[in-house]
Amino acid sequence: MTIDAYVESHRGRFLEELLELIRVPSISTLPEHKADVDRAAAMTADRLREAGLENVEIVPTQRHPLVYADWLHAPGKPTVLCYGHYDVQPADPLHLWTTPPFEPAIRDGNIYARGACDDKGQFYMHVKALETLFAVHGSLPVNVKVLIEGEEEVGGESIARYVPENKEKLRADVALVSDTALYADGLPTLCVGLRGLIYLEVSAKGPSRDLHSGLYGGAAPNAVFGLAQLLAKAKDDEGRILIPGVLDDVEEPADEEIASWKRLPFDESRFLADEVGSSRLTGEPDRMVLERVWSRPTFEVHGIGGGFTGAGSKTVIPAEALAKVSFRLVPRQDPEKVVAAFRAWVAANTPPGIEASVRVLSAGPGLVVKPEHPAIESAAAAFEETMGKPTVFIRSGGSIPIVGDFARHLGIPTVMMGLGLPDDRLHSPDEKFKLENFHTGIRTIARFLLRYGGSA
Amino acid sequence: MTIDAYVESHRGRFLEELLELIRVPSISTLPEHKADVDRAAAMTADRLREAGLENVEIVPTQRHPLVYADWLHAPGKPTVLCYGHYDVQPADPLHLWTTPPFEPAIRDGNIYARGACDDKGQFYMHVKALETLFAVHGSLPVNVKVLIEGEEEVGGESIARYVPENKEKLRADVALVSDTALYADGLPTLCVGLRGLIYLEVSAKGPSRDLHSGLYGGAAPNAVFGLAQLLAKAKDDEGRILIPGVLDDVEEPADEEIASWKRLPFDESRFLADEVGSSRLTGEPDRMVLERVWSRPTFEVHGIGGGFTGAGSKTVIPAEALAKVSFRLVPRQDPEKVVAAFRAWVAANTPPGIEASVRVLSAGPGLVVKPEHPAIESAAAAFEETMGKPTVFIRSGGSIPIVGDFARHLGIPTVMMGLGLPDDRLHSPDEKFKLENFHTGIRTIARFLLRYGGSA
Repeated sequence: MTIDAYVESHRGRFLEELLELIRVPSISTLPEHKADVDRAAAMTADRLREAGLENVEIVPTQRHPLVYADWLHAPGKPTVLCYGHYDVQPADPLHLWTTPPFEPAIRDGNIYARGACDDKGQFYMHVKALETLFAVHGSLPVNVKVLIEGEEEVGGESIARYVPENKEKLRADVALVSDTALYADGLPTLCVGLRGLIYLEVSAKGPSRDLHSGLYGGAAPNAVFGLAQLLAKAKDDEGRILIPGVLDDVEEPADEEIASWKRLPFDESRFLADEVGSSRLTGEPDRMVLERVWSRPTFEVHGIGGGFTGAGSKTVIPAEALAKVSFRLVPRQDPEKVVAAFRAWVAANTPPGIEASVRVLSAGPGLVVKPEHPAIESAAAAFEETMGKPTVFIRSGGSIPIVGDFARHLGIPTVMMGLGLPDDRLHSPDEKFKLENFHTGIRTIARFLLRYGGSA
Repeated sequence: MTIDAYVESHRGRFLEELLELIRVPSISTLPEHKADVDRAAAMTADRLREAGLENVEIVPTQRHPLVYADWLHAPGKPTVLCYGHYDVQPADPLHLWTTPPFEPAIRDGNIYARGACDDKGQFYMHVKALETLFAVHGSLPVNVKVLIEGEEEVGGESIARYVPENKEKLRADVALVSDTALYADGLPTLCVGLRGLIYLEVSAKGPSRDLHSGLYGGAAPNAVFGLAQLLAKAKDDEGRILIPGVLDDVEEPADEEIASWKRLPFDESRFLADEVGSSRLTGEPDRMVLERVWSRPTFEVHGIGGGFTGAGSKTVIPAEALAKVSFRLVPRQDPEKVVAAFRAWVAANTPPGIEASVRVLSAGPGLVVKPEHPAIESAAAAFEETMGKPTVFIRSGGSIPIVGDFARHLGIPTVMMGLGLPDDRLHSPDEKFKLENFHTGIRTIARFLLRYGGSA
């Protein structure tokens, strides 16, 4: 029997198993769902055991358990570390769902439910691909370790501790993460770059208390205005970062990568109108939009607060103000160097009378995976085989912390092979996952492992 | 009997009457104190009647009543409109009071209580000065109208409607307001200038919804950053306003007024350390501090909000942001012209991709009273007589809306003769009023009216 035939003949059961897992409202951020989170972990462990994995383990943590499993009987073959998460986002606002979020409904070839795509439907492709390989070949073509977490939607603290503490146990040649999307429906896509993230708080102090602006206005420094003045100097009107040192080490993508981005079906006017919804785009005018969001660093202000913003008029000179800001980093930028450059810039540019301080909440580098890596080549070929088109290589402007952790602590690249679609509404009402992509994903992952193990 | 002898011989009763009024917690902003507010109005009316005023009237309004009274039997003499307010601020935080806010205590020669100075103690000087004049002279040296409101601490909407609707009834030659402070203890002080105020909201819109900063950062406009960029252009680092047109009509104070300010006991290092409490002052470096806060326009940001400012990290590109801003205006600046200049500047300076809009919440001009006005000359001479020093003429950087209303609707200047002290802690715990100033104020106001009526 072939992989395709096995998947085809078990479509119904595969789907039923997934729907059973989706029905567990494993909302990791809500304490009242703690039992559901534990139930989802137990169910995940059971399904891994039934698929043929060994050493299945529910690893307790300070919050939600990890599920570990492996199969290590392919001597001389590479080892693949499969990652996913069984926890989901809250479902509110409930009234915007067409059908209840934890009663999955099939409409128009999609599964509608919270977690359908993010990430139950996607990591379950791994489980069923492994079952399929066991069923068809009696064994796996590579060694496999599986690590599924329950805290991805709440920051992933436990796995971030577990990985560096279990380097030997998790040792592998490559990781496989299915938590991304195809660039467009029907277009086989591998994500080979992520931006890093430095998240900071900048606070400003002016007078020792809020002052009456009539009595002191004109002579007393204003913390809100001072913070606005400081932040405004970070970029020019077009969006070029002006902070000395931040752009020093930025790696330009290879010419061929840029050329491939130009071939993608990107429609700037649709992006502006349907996704961004402002009067025009901003950013470095000499860079195309996909460069700006994939391969260029950014500086953003995520929020600002200070002084009086209630109804009516209050004439205070605010004593304090706070902003949340971040840098997105691209390959070769050193987060520590960028933080140091930012601190120096803040010190040099804070207006007179204002004291500004910087607090680092997190800092992780950007990363790229070389398309010539054997795992990437195998994944691209598997994709082309199942979807009938050449694989495109894209980046994401966002960050996937676990990919950074695997790189940093285990020294391995990650194959980001996600079968989501750009309009799957992750974290929003009517989240969906295309049913065909679920089955295509199972077939593609099985083929990827075969090719990577040298058996196809 | 002289004025001084009458005041001296009735000190005890004057104080007891004031304390009785202070004990009424007439907090205008708290609905549960509505009955207290009404009781304070009735008590004020009774005391005016007992002092010898006629046509005493409690004028109902949409919120808290006005108290009106008059005595108009001095034909050929000028008419003085006495203003005050019987309502007070809330007293919280209660635990910071040394003695309960509505149980007035005498310590170190001060009355400690909410409303002791602002404004019960001060307007009650008017009432007792009138009683004294009736007692000593059998009549008043001028015609007098009295108007006491109960909404000063909540915006004064009712009196702002009442004044323009009762121009004939309120017709007078000058108003007398005792709601300001001496420049320093023992220094007779008249306030002859107030800055005006334009209060505005500036809102900014960027993308149509909050966007993920990883996926869109670098290409999507950011409402918070755009608003910060816009506002930052309003002033240079020193505090000079850069908005074209705003400074066009600014009137410089006369050389002699500047010279007199230089003679005031102003201590810049004390002002910085004890009042402002920042590392240094800001503002136009070529102007002395009293100019900056009294005779120069300002632009201030009172508050700003937008995006995420909670605990932790959220990587949004905010869709919206809002700031509350104001201009303080000095004489000759036309509020409408400044608003128009600001709107034009916002339109010209809003960064690409951002839509900014301006909403005017209020707009009132600055004003000055000429020291040569006969009422000001009489007030200054009266002060010199009771306090034994030449009167200093100062301005206030703040606004007293009723003074603007009297100028606009009745066409009259106001004598701002306040006996408070700079450290009286208005609106704060342990508000106080110096007992000696209460009696000095009564004597000074009586003398002022005598002089202004040509009888002294």
